[in-house]
Amino acid sequence: MHQTKAVLLLSGGLDSSTLLALAVKEGYAVNALSFRYGQRHDAELAASQTIAKQYEVVQHMIMNIDLRAFGGSALTSSVPVPLDRPVDDNTTIPITYVPARNTIFLSFALAWAEVLGANDIFIGVNSLDYSGYPDCRPEFIDAFEKMAHLATRAGVEGGGELKIRTPLIDMTKSEIIRLGLDLGVDYGLTMSCYKPEPGSLACGRCDACQLRLRGFMEAGATDPARYASGPARATGVSV
Amino acid sequence: MHQTKAVLLLSGGLDSSTLLALAVKEGYAVNALSFRYGQRHDAELAASQTIAKQYEVVQHMIMNIDLRAFGGSALTSSVPVPLDRPVDDNTTIPITYVPARNTIFLSFALAWAEVLGANDIFIGVNSLDYSGYPDCRPEFIDAFEKMAHLATRAGVEGGGELKIRTPLIDMTKSEIIRLGLDLGVDYGLTMSCYKPEPGSLACGRCDACQLRLRGFMEAGATDPARYASGPARATGVSV
Repeated sequence: MHQTKAVLLLSGGLDSSTLLALAVKEGYAVNALSFRYGQRHDAELAASQTIAKQYEVVQHMIMNIDLRAFGGSALTSSVPVPLDRPVDDNTTIPITYVPARNTIFLSFALAWAEVLGANDIFIGVNSLDYSGYPDCRPEFIDAFEKMAHLATRAGVEGGGELKIRTPLIDMTKSEIIRLGLDLGVDYGLTMSCYKPEPGSLACGRCDACQLRLRGFMEAGATDPARYASGPARATGVSV
Repeated sequence: MHQTKAVLLLSGGLDSSTLLALAVKEGYAVNALSFRYGQRHDAELAASQTIAKQYEVVQHMIMNIDLRAFGGSALTSSVPVPLDRPVDDNTTIPITYVPARNTIFLSFALAWAEVLGANDIFIGVNSLDYSGYPDCRPEFIDAFEKMAHLATRAGVEGGGELKIRTPLIDMTKSEIIRLGLDLGVDYGLTMSCYKPEPGSLACGRCDACQLRLRGFMEAGATDPARYASGPARATGVSV
């Protein structure tokens, strides 16, 4: 069977792992792209490798880029990751925002897609991230897609239009989890935590852990991930 | 004096060196950004360091990114760089095109600009490159600028609009050279060649050398760069 080639941004977290399961289900030949970008831990990269292998992607590439050189984020500098923060406070952009990260990630995906002759780039942005990060919003994705078409050979020579695929963009975290469970995703392999403890144990307290735990609760499911403090609970949600 | 901060993409070639001289003349506090991206030689990076130092930029950062992992270009793979090619043949995109390179470079510049609080990004694209490379065209730059605004804090929180500054975009190579000579640029320090020979001698035969040599000829000036084969001449131009 001739499969449609795609490039997929895989962080090893819950969203991008669900995205991978979905793209594979839809029949894409997936080339997965991850980044060692100066994040403070390698746990999510280890997760991305396990998941890429499980889904038998065509290739899994890990690019090294040092966003620590710029700083400006709790994920790439010594600024503390906020813990136990009310995750519904979306009035300001969180300090975990990494400036232009998705722009950079999508730009590399674009380069690879052009070399591979792929017209589809998958990225697991969704409406929950959207609430805080500028580069998870639909209007950003639309603008990137327009720019990407003009940036490449197809914009001059004609040919396939590049599409940025964001099937999770309008879904809540619990809807993503339900979709993933239907697709058979093993969420025990995924790593969402911004600040895991030794042994790749999720902290249960950073924004990413809280959103994830609340998502599982709302989905009526149990998170199989291993947490540092036993059965973790989402802040501010009665159980 | 409070200066306006800018990020400037500096390759060490003729165009970006002229661009730097112009931005400094206009009073910008320049943060120069160069890339070790897997190009086959370090001569242009060495040139960028010399030039950045001469113009006393605020900072000069060299980012390491490995575009060889993707391949797809004579500049980042073992595909030969074309020599003695008629440089007016603009019917196809040259094999020296590096997929999505300017998109990637501008994305890093965007990240740095956001961290620095700079609203101006300078890139030395011009109409000659435009003839061959999709990501040197004005419509690409416009689309990138729109995307960039949506990608960053300013797109959510308001504040300064990011501008991609391309003062050379409508100039011919000879006009750029005349501008640079007026600004006092020492073109002997710059390196344009795609395939320099040992000792950082320009080959005089690749597209970049030919366009440069023709530009100097049309500007009525002598190129002070050192060429491998003595006084080099642009192909197809009577002297």
